[in-house]
Amino acid sequence: MVGRWVIIAAERRFRPRDFDAQANGTPTGPDVCPFCPGHESYTTPEVLAYRPPGSPANGPGWTTRVVSNKFPALQVEGELDRRGEGIYDRMNGIGAHEVIIESPDHTKELSELSVEEIERVLLAFRERMRDLKNDLRFRYIQVFKNHGAAAGASLEHGHAQLIATPIIPKTVQEELDGSLRHFQQKERCVYCDIVEQELREGRRLVRDEEGFVAIAPFAPRFSFETWILPKRHQASFDEMEPEGLSALARVLRDTLGRLRRALDGPSYNFLIHTAPCREPHLEHYHWHLEIFPKLAHVAGFEWGTGFYINTTPPEESAKYLRELEARA
Amino acid sequence: MVGRWVIIAAERRFRPRDFDAQANGTPTGPDVCPFCPGHESYTTPEVLAYRPPGSPANGPGWTTRVVSNKFPALQVEGELDRRGEGIYDRMNGIGAHEVIIESPDHTKELSELSVEEIERVLLAFRERMRDLKNDLRFRYIQVFKNHGAAAGASLEHGHAQLIATPIIPKTVQEELDGSLRHFQQKERCVYCDIVEQELREGRRLVRDEEGFVAIAPFAPRFSFETWILPKRHQASFDEMEPEGLSALARVLRDTLGRLRRALDGPSYNFLIHTAPCREPHLEHYHWHLEIFPKLAHVAGFEWGTGFYINTTPPEESAKYLRELEARA
Repeated sequence: MVGRWVIIAAERRFRPRDFDAQANGTPTGPDVCPFCPGHESYTTPEVLAYRPPGSPANGPGWTTRVVSNKFPALQVEGELDRRGEGIYDRMNGIGAHEVIIESPDHTKELSELSVEEIERVLLAFRERMRDLKNDLRFRYIQVFKNHGAAAGASLEHGHAQLIATPIIPKTVQEELDGSLRHFQQKERCVYCDIVEQELREGRRLVRDEEGFVAIAPFAPRFSFETWILPKRHQASFDEMEPEGLSALARVLRDTLGRLRRALDGPSYNFLIHTAPCREPHLEHYHWHLEIFPKLAHVAGFEWGTGFYINTTPPEESAKYLRELEARA
Repeated sequence: MVGRWVIIAAERRFRPRDFDAQANGTPTGPDVCPFCPGHESYTTPEVLAYRPPGSPANGPGWTTRVVSNKFPALQVEGELDRRGEGIYDRMNGIGAHEVIIESPDHTKELSELSVEEIERVLLAFRERMRDLKNDLRFRYIQVFKNHGAAAGASLEHGHAQLIATPIIPKTVQEELDGSLRHFQQKERCVYCDIVEQELREGRRLVRDEEGFVAIAPFAPRFSFETWILPKRHQASFDEMEPEGLSALARVLRDTLGRLRRALDGPSYNFLIHTAPCREPHLEHYHWHLEIFPKLAHVAGFEWGTGFYINTTPPEESAKYLRELEARA
């Protein structure tokens, strides 16, 4: 009725949960971690890995490794089979759910990796996006990261995820519709306009370097919400070339490092919003990366209204982050 | 651009927080609680209280008490003053933010109160809604409750809240738009259709009594999400008459009691969705109460897509709740 789809994935309740295990006193850490080197057989076979020439698949030696999620929210096999059920609609949960293991090091947070290591993580995002676009059942590929228990992570070893979905997500469709309206009125991309206004005003700017800006958005839902956008118009993340990935790695490392220092290593989510699979070159849409530190719980008012109450004005969070010396 | 409004309320960072205090070892509890009897001067003056005849305002003796939030998200004084700021829009944070203190007892959760006590809480909701509708600046009144730290509560003494907003919230507007489309096609209220289908199928039904149903909705965002709806069409919560409030108190107490027993006293939010202030008698909209136990953290995929991953099918949660003997 409101166009909401939910994914019912009962098997996911059986996935391992480091943070629950720690609370229960069950051991976690490199000895039992499915993402640590030497434990490659604990995961599904790798779909992509960066490893030295000659090093065999599904063994140690890799630097970034991508596997299918063992407890996927969506299943890759089968047909969509859309059908009605009285006034409701149902379809099979078809999709792909992959895990990008960022590095072999169990203990390092993404912002503690080297620029080269982060660049490989971003390259893995791009390669998996490009490959999954060949499956014509998929309409959108959502890349995201959950870091820390409060952000919904279940394992502590640093990893990002992607889910390819058979419909364009509601949140993305709202951005597509809103940016199209702006374009129809002004023949300009609204994200290009945001970049231009933030560079001109400077009050919500965190960083401006190497073709990217990091900003506190004008209407942040969360304290210290921060976005990274390419300054030049680009609709799809997977259009990025190597020099762009390298620059983004530096800006992302710098921004996450500032948030880590400012907020004492917060739990956070990030997500990449990009153009849908079948419309990669939109003039009105512009990919971007949104980072949400999880400092407070979303409560009833937010659920009821879709309005967010934020106790930190964006001008204040941007100033704080801007003036913080970035971690060496 | 996507029509998102956020409320920047920097003063709210100074509000007291029992759960943080407990983590720090700062004392909490009835001795220092601003909502406990004898501490009426710790709050703003009451806007409504149920108390014995002759008992003076802002002193002990009350059974349910409503005060303005001391750290409001929105301020009641002033004009909206809508204005542009480059490509963005800004307005003053005008509204009302009130706290409904459910009972004098610091330790009792809402479902542990008597039916008569819960009925007075619901009556307070209705009376405050009716009164605030007289202020023509307000377009919507959102009643909600946060119980427990994971649901965003800052104080442990049982309380609900309401926020009157100068614009119709996005989430409510989506329900209004969706239910209007259904009505235009079928000349029936979609919520009446939901009630009818759930009563007929029975698989997602938790309770059916005294003019209300409690159901697991077809597309629950969260495990054990449960909705309560009046079986007869009614657009606005504040149209409820005393016998309706009394029946709702019994159904709400029973439903919250089942959730409490099933999930071992979970943190939860509930919220009431009702018709906007100026359109109280819509044929296509039907008020309802949504309850969300907070068993897991919302993560990056949900923020990125607006899709929710739920590990409990609604037929399973409804069966479990239905078959649980309700608390005596």
